[in-house]
Amino acid sequence: MRVTTIHAPGDIRLEERPRPEISAPTDAVIKITAGCICGSDLWPYRGANEITPGDTIGHEMVGVIEEVGSEVRSFAPGDFVIVPFCTCDNTCPNCRNGAHSACRNGGFTTGGQGEYGLVTQAEGSLVKTDAFPDPAMIPSLLTLSDVFPTGWHCAVSAGVKKGDTVVVVGDGAVGLCGVLAASQMGAERVIAMSRHEPRQAIAREFGATHVVAERGREGAAAIKEITDGVGADAVLECVGTNDAMQQAFAVARPGAMVGFVGVPHDVELPVSRMFAKNVGLAGGVAPVRRYLPELLDLVTSGAVNPGLVFDTVLPLAEVAAGYRAMDERTAIKVLLQP
Amino acid sequence: MRVTTIHAPGDIRLEERPRPEISAPTDAVIKITAGCICGSDLWPYRGANEITPGDTIGHEMVGVIEEVGSEVRSFAPGDFVIVPFCTCDNTCPNCRNGAHSACRNGGFTTGGQGEYGLVTQAEGSLVKTDAFPDPAMIPSLLTLSDVFPTGWHCAVSAGVKKGDTVVVVGDGAVGLCGVLAASQMGAERVIAMSRHEPRQAIAREFGATHVVAERGREGAAAIKEITDGVGADAVLECVGTNDAMQQAFAVARPGAMVGFVGVPHDVELPVSRMFAKNVGLAGGVAPVRRYLPELLDLVTSGAVNPGLVFDTVLPLAEVAAGYRAMDERTAIKVLLQP
Repeated sequence: MRVTTIHAPGDIRLEERPRPEISAPTDAVIKITAGCICGSDLWPYRGANEITPGDTIGHEMVGVIEEVGSEVRSFAPGDFVIVPFCTCDNTCPNCRNGAHSACRNGGFTTGGQGEYGLVTQAEGSLVKTDAFPDPAMIPSLLTLSDVFPTGWHCAVSAGVKKGDTVVVVGDGAVGLCGVLAASQMGAERVIAMSRHEPRQAIAREFGATHVVAERGREGAAAIKEITDGVGADAVLECVGTNDAMQQAFAVARPGAMVGFVGVPHDVELPVSRMFAKNVGLAGGVAPVRRYLPELLDLVTSGAVNPGLVFDTVLPLAEVAAGYRAMDERTAIKVLLQP
Repeated sequence: MRVTTIHAPGDIRLEERPRPEISAPTDAVIKITAGCICGSDLWPYRGANEITPGDTIGHEMVGVIEEVGSEVRSFAPGDFVIVPFCTCDNTCPNCRNGAHSACRNGGFTTGGQGEYGLVTQAEGSLVKTDAFPDPAMIPSLLTLSDVFPTGWHCAVSAGVKKGDTVVVVGDGAVGLCGVLAASQMGAERVIAMSRHEPRQAIAREFGATHVVAERGREGAAAIKEITDGVGADAVLECVGTNDAMQQAFAVARPGAMVGFVGVPHDVELPVSRMFAKNVGLAGGVAPVRRYLPELLDLVTSGAVNPGLVFDTVLPLAEVAAGYRAMDERTAIKVLLQP
């Protein structure tokens, strides 16, 4: 089968590899209907993470079950399933505490940018739809694998509640899903920080009431003005850089929470500022499985359309072009069709 | 009048200064019934904070109103009042958000280790008792000025709820009040980290179900064992050193919150660990006024006795000996009688 591999920064290839096989009774093999490229895939692509040449890359996918291990009882060949990027047994103490991304038997999905994927802990990780979905719904279902629950987790971590003023730092697909999450949770004002017109448009479609194009001090000043000098009740940091984190703290009101879901790279937390202003920080690797029942309902009922973050659809053969487009920010998020 | 001043690290003096006077219509002058020494006073005493020689020191007090400004309407000479260490108007947007310690018109109380204190924003800051209290209740009422609400704020910030397993790092008066707060909030297990027998005894009286004397890796291992390898649902960091902060993160379960109320000194937050384990951090300068109605009820009803943290009572004249005792940890917290 064909699957995407990375060999060096900027060197993405589609290679022939053996189809994954069941090796544990908790495994499942998925024939991938759609996969995609994640913002976090750009870290190794840009050389910011270490690379083992020839490793497969890609951790988001939806598809049809091809084969299951003997302990996978709720899923059978033919089922259409959402594959969370982090797997879990959904029964260990950490899962019971809602920290599914720290499952004692969990791991990370790999091979999502390919033809077949292997899912460990399939019983605990997967959720399925009632039938093979309408093709128009595939993009939104694919966001359930990572990007929508990650934006959702950011809003949950920031404690977003009805009536809040929320700022979202980052206009990538995660940030846009953070806008959608905050809006769904009843935030009264959702301020998207974005300089890119197409992303601003999606943010507004997702419920942003304000867009701030400025950054840094100017951005903070613009938000102070919108909030009558108070600052935001909740801030969603959806990037992972130090600039984004400092921006988040700069716009938070005293007593606010910052949620963060961008993998932190060279981030230094302003502990004295946090202490003086009582601004907290929570978040991390999204416990996708925890949110899936609720978010799957939102998607299948048509209440939300997070699939709008896919502004580019490419055949799997053009995966390298997809990386280039996301790296150059000419694409927000690229959906890959095997 | 006599008031405590600091001139250099270790150089505490009782000096003659003019009695404070009303200079703004929101001021009140308090004849101090009892003051005390705070753990945070030890930072300048030990040379860890900058000192302006001759500055008064001390920010906790209870006493009787001597005089009020023209805009102070709810209090009159003769009222017995609790003076929060941070003052607030209790009406600005930050106060309305519960972030009273970031009040737009707020400040810090000074002169608490003396005969008379000046309180700015008296109307918003003070609370009073129905009558002059039983002398036996003065120590517990004095804790409402800072240490009890600070421990309470740590537990609130850590999101302590019924049934939780809570670890308290730090066995100073704030840590002990954190134990009391967690216990009052319904925590099922409250684990006090303490090596000092008299402090352990107070911790148990305040509701600690376990005491762990080990620190560092051994301490973390002991807590792992108590929690079946999971870690704590909530951790209260009540010291402010980097060691204490790292200890707090080392014992938190995935998805937990760390509350912090010790003024951070050279603390470096483990952002990657926080992200990987989804462990959040919240807290800061305690918004004392926010909690006072509830905590005053707890004290005056006799439900709690936080005054136990005062294991040493000295006349104001011996304030320098009080600092030495707290610095050498022969006293937990020193109450001063003018």
